[in-house]
Amino acid sequence: MSQFIVIEGLEGAGKSTVHAHVVAWLQARGISVVNTREPGGTPLAERMRDLVKEVHDEPMTMEAELLLMYAARVQLVRNRIQPALAADCWVVGDRHDWSSLAYQGGGRGIDLQLIRQIKQAVLGDFGPDFILYLDLDPAIGLARAQERGKLDRIEQEQLSFFQRTRATYLALAAAEPNCRLIDASLDEEGVKEAVLTALEQWFVSLAK
Amino acid sequence: MSQFIVIEGLEGAGKSTVHAHVVAWLQARGISVVNTREPGGTPLAERMRDLVKEVHDEPMTMEAELLLMYAARVQLVRNRIQPALAADCWVVGDRHDWSSLAYQGGGRGIDLQLIRQIKQAVLGDFGPDFILYLDLDPAIGLARAQERGKLDRIEQEQLSFFQRTRATYLALAAAEPNCRLIDASLDEEGVKEAVLTALEQWFVSLAK
Ligand SMILES: Nc1ncnc2c1ncn2[C@@H]1O[C@H](COP(=O)(O)OP(=O)(O)O)[C@@H](O)[C@H]1O
Ligand SMILES: Nc1ncnc2c1ncn2[C@@H]1O[C@H](COP(=O)(O)OP(=O)(O)O)[C@@H](O)[C@H]1O
Ligand SMILES: [Mg+2]
Ligand SMILES: [Mg+2]
Repeated sequence: MSQFIVIEGLEGAGKSTVHAHVVAWLQARGISVVNTREPGGTPLAERMRDLVKEVHDEPMTMEAELLLMYAARVQLVRNRIQPALAADCWVVGDRHDWSSLAYQGGGRGIDLQLIRQIKQAVLGDFGPDFILYLDLDPAIGLARAQERGKLDRIEQEQLSFFQRTRATYLALAAAEPNCRLIDASLDEEGVKEAVLTALEQWFVSLAK
Repeated sequence: MSQFIVIEGLEGAGKSTVHAHVVAWLQARGISVVNTREPGGTPLAERMRDLVKEVHDEPMTMEAELLLMYAARVQLVRNRIQPALAADCWVVGDRHDWSSLAYQGGGRGIDLQLIRQIKQAVLGDFGPDFILYLDLDPAIGLARAQERGKLDRIEQEQLSFFQRTRATYLALAAAEPNCRLIDASLDEEGVKEAVLTALEQWFVSLAK
């Protein structure tokens, strides 16, 4: 049965790098894969992504940021992820729901229960089957991201914002049996090996 | 104390027309007035308005539509309405929260309790002090709106959609002591007279 795998972590943790390895690993096993990235992944969701990432003169309230994230996510889930899963494709997502809990919850300080209520209201019980959380000191991740180019509105937040975000990620990872925490401070080869080992173990467990 | 007055009703009911009369009436009494229209009313909220109103190839889910409406509303309330009220201006709104209950709730069929949950989560108890609901048979309103120009994504809905929307408006109006129902099938002069009479009665009651 098709599965929805999600890669989570802070900016520069290596999500996009790992994403490509996971996709290649699945394809090598004859699995059809659909990629997503969040926020975004459909034409309308990409428009919402732009709104969230651009630097604006008008301050964006944390509530509007949260609602835009879920508006984009509903478009992606209904118009892309669920149709792919129904067509027997696996889906590998670069970020999903935990990003809202970690960033808008942990980072911005919106009550996690409130975020879960909104999630439940618009997406019900839909969620990933397996999560790879790339854990990294935000100072290191931001330095990596900075090398990549100009920082967007959220990436421009203070270090303390990302420390709260990481703490929320760690709490979520600790409480979720279908999550594997990966030490993302290793070099690219080391992260790749840890990710593929975790993926293989989970893959084998699925078959049982 | 400054007040937030909202004008609600279907397309073509005469909201924008009445809005101008209400503003002029208040200004004639020396009151500073700030106008708003929803969705929209701040630069970011107008971007969200465009997303909601444009006709897209990708179907917009009703949940994303709802979340975009509230994202726009939070921006407007926090960045425009509340600062105006705090500066002793009155605010006259062309649509507000009832539009979401009537259109996304009644029209689209999203559970009203769920919409109220989202509203409470992002806006708390904030709401209008006085509501003028312009009641009109949707067939008449749509004919008026059609004369005005090309119909947007929501205005293109079927008549039955607007009949459900009107039914929800009527239920909201019946349950709200601070709402006056205006018969919007009268001619412009008749509507204006009914509106200004209702406004004056409420205005006098405020002073007591
Ligand atoms: N394990 C790693 N060690 C060092 N640098 C890495 C590692 N993984 C990725 N990078 C580099 O860090 C930057 C951010 O990686 P990326 O995969 O884009 O992260 P994310 O998608 O999580 O923001 C890229 O330049 C990438 O080449
Ligand atoms: N009472 C009325 N009777 C007939 N036409 C009206 C009346 N009020 C407004 N109109 C006209 O109907 C159209 C829609 O009015 P408008 O105020 O823009 O409605 P809304 O803002 O509710 O969509 C406009 O062309 C307006 O001139
Ligand atoms: Mg990336
Ligand atoms: Mg109007």
